[in-house]
Amino acid sequence: MKTTAKKPMKLTAQDIYNKLIQEDKILEVSGCITFDLAQVNIVVKQKDVVGNIIQEWLAGWMKARGIYYQLGENSQMPPDFFLSEDRSANLLEVKAFNRLATPAFDIADFKSYYRELLSKPYMLHVDYLIFGYEMTSEGRVVIRDLWLKKVWEITRRMGEWPLHLQIKQGVVQKIRPCTWYSTAKRRSFTPFRCLEDFVAAIEETVYRNPDTRHVASTWLLSFKRAYQAHYGVSPSIPRWVDIEQTYIPEEE
Amino acid sequence: MKTTAKKPMKLTAQDIYNKLIQEDKILEVSGCITFDLAQVNIVVKQKDVVGNIIQEWLAGWMKARGIYYQLGENSQMPPDFFLSEDRSANLLEVKAFNRLATPAFDIADFKSYYRELLSKPYMLHVDYLIFGYEMTSEGRVVIRDLWLKKVWEITRRMGEWPLHLQIKQGVVQKIRPCTWYSTAKRRSFTPFRCLEDFVAAIEETVYRNPDTRHVASTWLLSFKRAYQAHYGVSPSIPRWVDIEQTYIPEEE
Repeated sequence: MKTTAKKPMKLTAQDIYNKLIQEDKILEVSGCITFDLAQVNIVVKQKDVVGNIIQEWLAGWMKARGIYYQLGENSQMPPDFFLSEDRSANLLEVKAFNRLATPAFDIADFKSYYRELLSKPYMLHVDYLIFGYEMTSEGRVVIRDLWLKKVWEITRRMGEWPLHLQIKQGVVQKIRPCTWYSTAKRRSFTPFRCLEDFVAAIEETVYRNPDTRHVASTWLLSFKRAYQAHYGVSPSIPRWVDIEQTYIPEEE
Repeated sequence: MKTTAKKPMKLTAQDIYNKLIQEDKILEVSGCITFDLAQVNIVVKQKDVVGNIIQEWLAGWMKARGIYYQLGENSQMPPDFFLSEDRSANLLEVKAFNRLATPAFDIADFKSYYRELLSKPYMLHVDYLIFGYEMTSEGRVVIRDLWLKKVWEITRRMGEWPLHLQIKQGVVQKIRPCTWYSTAKRRSFTPFRCLEDFVAAIEETVYRNPDTRHVASTWLLSFKRAYQAHYGVSPSIPRWVDIEQTYIPEEE
């Protein structure tokens, strides 16, 4: 009798989300990080290592469940996983944060991101699988929340800037997430409503950031061409000035 | 029959170092970080979490071996452990770094450190227990080297500065370690020879750093008084200009 290796299943990000919730009951189980050296086994109680480990765990989980994946090449840029051979669709990015604090992960380095959108407009459609974990005082890791989001659903405006950014010495660094799950009635925390508004915020940031202003006059046109070439439709991107009132700036 | 809890042993840093090497054969064993969630158990292969975990492991090891310790209060400043009730002696700081790279840990925040030496001159005598680890591609953690050092044995001069410092926008931030174990014949990597030369470098840095210059005229006097009050002897601190030729600056 010939043994045949079972071929991995191709699943979408939504399938994966559903499977984690429904089959693995990810919101009901708890886990544990341990370190074993010289016959001394400790439970690791440092919250800040959990975020780094969850992505590795998801790879192990997909392998154990027979799900197809390839690893992303660059850990600094999305995606972490390709869920199909087509490297321009079914892209999965994994994020994790301590649910008792606000999200501390970065969305992307702004300068890499606005450039990458011109060559890979499908980066806009990456699925973000986000783990909100807690660690008990005994070191038990509990997944309190699991979300599946698009980038515009987890980003927002910030003060005078159209995007929530990390800024060092006046220079734009990372795109930062919003607290998309917040139930507070503060409209300043509202994420963007759609892809188009998010792209408008990117374009306005390219213009306002001294470092990138030199490409501001052509960026939107280049982006639209790239998007059209890939998807066959051209998105209708509003001007930031026309929508900025929709997104109330923070009181500072 | 009455059971009596066994009283923890008081050991010195040197005893701990010897015990790790001789009894636990720390340089011959290997360990493993694992994460177990939803019946999926992975071996963590991220090198950058090892450094954070080793300190926790050492606490677990001391507990398992019946060694007395109390945890330091401030994770940003030495020591990590008090090895006796006397909080001005037997101070232990734990560091770890990937042995295939150069040490990436900080010695201390300069501004906190130079100030702290005035109220706690015994901070100069903290013992640094340093783990040089490697992680194999399968995620096995191996301790390649273990050192027990004083602060002046793991610090050095840097370019125009008397100390190897992290500097951001002209402002001194962290004191950084040297590669004390290097066998290269580059004299620029030579650590300080003694406590006195290290203190001279601290004083010169207080003077050169715009942020701390206002206290430069009195710092050394205050330090000597504090040291004398604690130890009953006054250290003879050279002037940096008189010793700087001993420590060749890097070629830059």
